[in-house]
Amino acid sequence: MPPEPFFSGPGLDRADHLRVDPDAIRQLASHVLARQLIWENGAPAIGEFGQLRWETVTGSPPLFLGLDGDSPCFSHLPDGNAAVDARAHFQLLALVDVAEAPTFAAALSLANWHRRHGHCSVCGQVTEPNRGGWSRACTSCSAEHYPRVDPVVIMLAEHDGRLLLGRQPHYPPGRYSALAGFVEPGESIEAAVARELKEEAGIDVTDVHYLSSQPWPFPSTLMIGAHAIALDDSLAIDTNELDDARWFTRQEVIDALAQRPEASFQAPPPWAIARTLLEAWLDGLK
Amino acid sequence: MPPEPFFSGPGLDRADHLRVDPDAIRQLASHVLARQLIWENGAPAIGEFGQLRWETVTGSPPLFLGLDGDSPCFSHLPDGNAAVDARAHFQLLALVDVAEAPTFAAALSLANWHRRHGHCSVCGQVTEPNRGGWSRACTSCSAEHYPRVDPVVIMLAEHDGRLLLGRQPHYPPGRYSALAGFVEPGESIEAAVARELKEEAGIDVTDVHYLSSQPWPFPSTLMIGAHAIALDDSLAIDTNELDDARWFTRQEVIDALAQRPEASFQAPPPWAIARTLLEAWLDGLK
Repeated sequence: MPPEPFFSGPGLDRADHLRVDPDAIRQLASHVLARQLIWENGAPAIGEFGQLRWETVTGSPPLFLGLDGDSPCFSHLPDGNAAVDARAHFQLLALVDVAEAPTFAAALSLANWHRRHGHCSVCGQVTEPNRGGWSRACTSCSAEHYPRVDPVVIMLAEHDGRLLLGRQPHYPPGRYSALAGFVEPGESIEAAVARELKEEAGIDVTDVHYLSSQPWPFPSTLMIGAHAIALDDSLAIDTNELDDARWFTRQEVIDALAQRPEASFQAPPPWAIARTLLEAWLDGLK
Repeated sequence: MPPEPFFSGPGLDRADHLRVDPDAIRQLASHVLARQLIWENGAPAIGEFGQLRWETVTGSPPLFLGLDGDSPCFSHLPDGNAAVDARAHFQLLALVDVAEAPTFAAALSLANWHRRHGHCSVCGQVTEPNRGGWSRACTSCSAEHYPRVDPVVIMLAEHDGRLLLGRQPHYPPGRYSALAGFVEPGESIEAAVARELKEEAGIDVTDVHYLSSQPWPFPSTLMIGAHAIALDDSLAIDTNELDDARWFTRQEVIDALAQRPEASFQAPPPWAIARTLLEAWLDGLK
């Protein structure tokens, strides 16, 4: 089995067959066990034990998140159209219970998408939530728009037993992590991994292997973790994208994950798939 | 190495560092080797040997597709905002040379996206191509919009040596293929595979393994091929999605791929990743 990063569990029963039935959704919203998500500062509110916080349904919440057993789960869209600082939300991730993380990710991704899609990209007129919030319909032309999920490849390149990790300019001091980039139209996962490693680090790779995936709600990406073999270890770093990139030995990765004082870099946090990939690499899974 | 479906090769050098430099793109467009794609009926035109057809650059083509050696490759957006019938384009796939397929996919996906994104989803005002056609910028607010790549899982569920395949209503007579569905916000690949198989066929699965991926330009998806083990073979088919779904033996798959007269179903065509997955399964790759 592939390793399971944070955010990657099953979450709620999405019960997607109910989305096309507005009457059924209205009935669910008036169910005695129905509840709606509480939002704080543009993100789902977290309780003191890491659980999502819910309250009794008010009005007609446009998002039907799914079923938790017999309990229908809804959400209003959070207030405010201002761009939310994703970095502030990262603080929350240290608090969220792992079993609650998939629902946190789904609700936040969906809200992020609604926030930027109040108008129809085809004709420019106003759109409204549809299908229990899993699409928006144009009030003028016939267009229906579905939430974005943007695939991103994130990969460990290996050469002669060492791993390539890089630093993005906004990282905390000492942090190195896996290189990453968006999959573009007309690209396979394998082609995107090879292109990004060539662009950002100047290396050619072979043997690209998928490892694991993770939804990432900042704003709404699908992180696709992979491993590749570099043909050479000489680097040509794209300094527009990266502050630095270097090869790290197995022992350096072990020291960093264990947060040893002698560690030569700071590993990515537990909720990042990059950390899962490093742990899987140490475990010999490629 | 994972099997390589149609459309999944490297294609052109996308030279994405040039996209942010409008002067560099203008210079490339006036290069003696510059060329632009010819379009016919809303798709890249195909020559008699399966090659893409190009002509000398005219005006300022908004799409910079990349470099073919020293030759900068451009495209205008094809005429017409009407929805194009993807099924008519499938006819072309039998003609396209496999080495040309990635460029065909990139150009068509990008054009499909531009066709539906003339307005800003944030404010509704007009957008214009930006970054050599790899984004659109709003002429009114500050929003920049990137092309969609919608991840779709497509999977072979196996039970006791047999494979589950299904029929969508629009398939040609006798055709069965792998079940598929869009990855939703807040879902990993593995969670999406399990959810879709439960929704469409009523089966619970374990051991979801990635196999291969393929860009698919109808309109712009990333097909993510997987294999899973079904816990049981009793089916509950969602008849809104599927006409039928059945378990097929290894011999039935062999007969179908070989187009034998006794074949119990018609296999998907060579350019479909579903066929690649069936071939990989017969080869023992899981």
